[in-house]
Amino acid sequence: MNPKRPIWYLPEKDLVQVIDQRKLPHVFEVFDIKNCDDTVYAIKNMVVRGAPLIGVTAAWGFYMSLKGSNAEDNVVFELEKKINSSRPTAMNLFYATKKVRAAVLKETFADKRIEAAKRAAEEIEAAEIYNCRKIGEFGVSLIEDIYSYKKDVVNILTHCNAGWLACVEYGTATSPIYHAHEKGIPVHVWVDETRPLNQGARLTAWELDQAKVPYTVIADNTGGHLMQHDLVDIVIVGSDRTTINGDVANKIGTYLKALAARDNRIPFYAALPGSTIDFELENGVKNIPIELRNEDEIKYIEGLGSKGVEKFLITLENAHAANYAFDVTPARLVTGIITEKGIARAEKDDLLRLFPEYRYNRLHN
Amino acid sequence: MNPKRPIWYLPEKDLVQVIDQRKLPHVFEVFDIKNCDDTVYAIKNMVVRGAPLIGVTAAWGFYMSLKGSNAEDNVVFELEKKINSSRPTAMNLFYATKKVRAAVLKETFADKRIEAAKRAAEEIEAAEIYNCRKIGEFGVSLIEDIYSYKKDVVNILTHCNAGWLACVEYGTATSPIYHAHEKGIPVHVWVDETRPLNQGARLTAWELDQAKVPYTVIADNTGGHLMQHDLVDIVIVGSDRTTINGDVANKIGTYLKALAARDNRIPFYAALPGSTIDFELENGVKNIPIELRNEDEIKYIEGLGSKGVEKFLITLENAHAANYAFDVTPARLVTGIITEKGIARAEKDDLLRLFPEYRYNRLHN
Repeated sequence: MNPKRPIWYLPEKDLVQVIDQRKLPHVFEVFDIKNCDDTVYAIKNMVVRGAPLIGVTAAWGFYMSLKGSNAEDNVVFELEKKINSSRPTAMNLFYATKKVRAAVLKETFADKRIEAAKRAAEEIEAAEIYNCRKIGEFGVSLIEDIYSYKKDVVNILTHCNAGWLACVEYGTATSPIYHAHEKGIPVHVWVDETRPLNQGARLTAWELDQAKVPYTVIADNTGGHLMQHDLVDIVIVGSDRTTINGDVANKIGTYLKALAARDNRIPFYAALPGSTIDFELENGVKNIPIELRNEDEIKYIEGLGSKGVEKFLITLENAHAANYAFDVTPARLVTGIITEKGIARAEKDDLLRLFPEYRYNRLHN
Repeated sequence: MNPKRPIWYLPEKDLVQVIDQRKLPHVFEVFDIKNCDDTVYAIKNMVVRGAPLIGVTAAWGFYMSLKGSNAEDNVVFELEKKINSSRPTAMNLFYATKKVRAAVLKETFADKRIEAAKRAAEEIEAAEIYNCRKIGEFGVSLIEDIYSYKKDVVNILTHCNAGWLACVEYGTATSPIYHAHEKGIPVHVWVDETRPLNQGARLTAWELDQAKVPYTVIADNTGGHLMQHDLVDIVIVGSDRTTINGDVANKIGTYLKALAARDNRIPFYAALPGSTIDFELENGVKNIPIELRNEDEIKYIEGLGSKGVEKFLITLENAHAANYAFDVTPARLVTGIITEKGIARAEKDDLLRLFPEYRYNRLHN
């Protein structure tokens, strides 16, 4: 097991394994992906989560599924369809299986096809790692800058989990933090609990604990107070979707932290791979649809009680609740966007400087 | 039992009873206050909470404690000391016991002293009810105004529990809401869950449910998104302490909602009795000390599981957590302050217009 990856391939066993993220941080368990059923189960039941990781899991799962078959065209299409059915809205999932399928269909013989699937999975994984590493290399300069004049521990606030558990290595928002820590810059991370699913308290805190990066879990309500009292030097969050104008859709509550950062003149950055930028969208607040999830995620919470890990009711049983999953932080509150190509201001011209291909796509679509 | 009061006196049994708020909303239980030990237990163990209610409970508890005694001077002082020891920082507690003690010591004979204690408790309770009722009568005009032009359900967002469970009747932030509901104005309340102790999800939602006021529980992260999408018409919160300049200390996270309200041009009001205004303090962010409570309130949460109501671990057992209880919303973000004397702008001159006695105190202290 590689302690900084949520997924790995064991060549000696020809087997793919993932961390079962459903039980973290209370129980660390590894889940084997041996075939198509395991792949679908892992994605559907959130053994793995986070868009980049879902893509990589789908790619490796495609390879594992193909291995035991004759890899004929109809089998390839059938497996792709089955894996895609696991989470019908994840773009990275479709992108990954499509890429594996295309690589497979270029070959004629079964053994070559299976080999091609494996190579495609390796490539998809490598691209995710590369992007996250580059985000860290560019982003660490921001932390270094602060350290150069503060000459004391740099306090970073983050929201949700945009760490390696959601990606493959480094993560996005956490990548500059890990890079700073590796360079010996003293950092401390304020980890927003991130209700309702507590990805901050459960996953980000666990990641930082593993990496021995100092951190403190706080209720989501706390960031504004900390910023008023100079206890935050920089905010770095991830993003699920970013408009070409720099509006950032991320886990619900991100907008509130951006407001507090602005009110206290604290830099607020979003770290994200270029693939997250939606060059078709201009007004994020108006046009990015926000998922309204099941209210039970508000009413019940998972925790470790006297009977082990279970879900507990924390409101009246018949309480009304609403569960908005994301919000949009307008570009005017975003100091900058950290990508694998460099850091841009949250505005069209500067994003197009880093990603000229978006200009091209825009003109030709 | 009176369903809109957390404390009541039963003349036929000469007994004081309170709602046991520790178990709400899962279990409704009544707790008897028969003597001094019961009083201390109820306050110390948070059977009752909320500054006004703590004061009223202490006053009634003083009466119940005195009843079985000879009510001699040393007994009176002894009981006051014991009750005061229950929560050493609650101003309302000391204020209430002092008032009862003063009334008692004016009398000579035991039966007159006990009668005086009862009368003092009734007076303290009546004053709390009066203040909350007046806050509602003044505050309801704001909701009526919105309804007059919107002509549709008025959406109110509130944080924590500043309801009758924290007071005796009406509450502070909830009082305008209950008054509007009674007048037939259609209202709907967004109830911030209010981590870490979930007073919103547990208590405010329960109160509104009892009163049949439509409400929806939301994660604390959600308010900004709702305001961006015109789903909030007004924010009303309580306050634990307010400076003479209008800075409002309230449950942690209030400041973030005030920022979102300002960013979306939504009125943000604090509802509070004049006794909450600290006329000695000018800069709230700098000078109001913020209680840092036990980190276990972040790491554990109370809920209903398969073995009944218990506390569950929701982070790593050895996770670091920080638990700031309040934050301060600067006056510049506060549209107005609703008091028992009327509504003031969040500034010294206008607060002194409503409370000229503060000017007097300031000059003569």
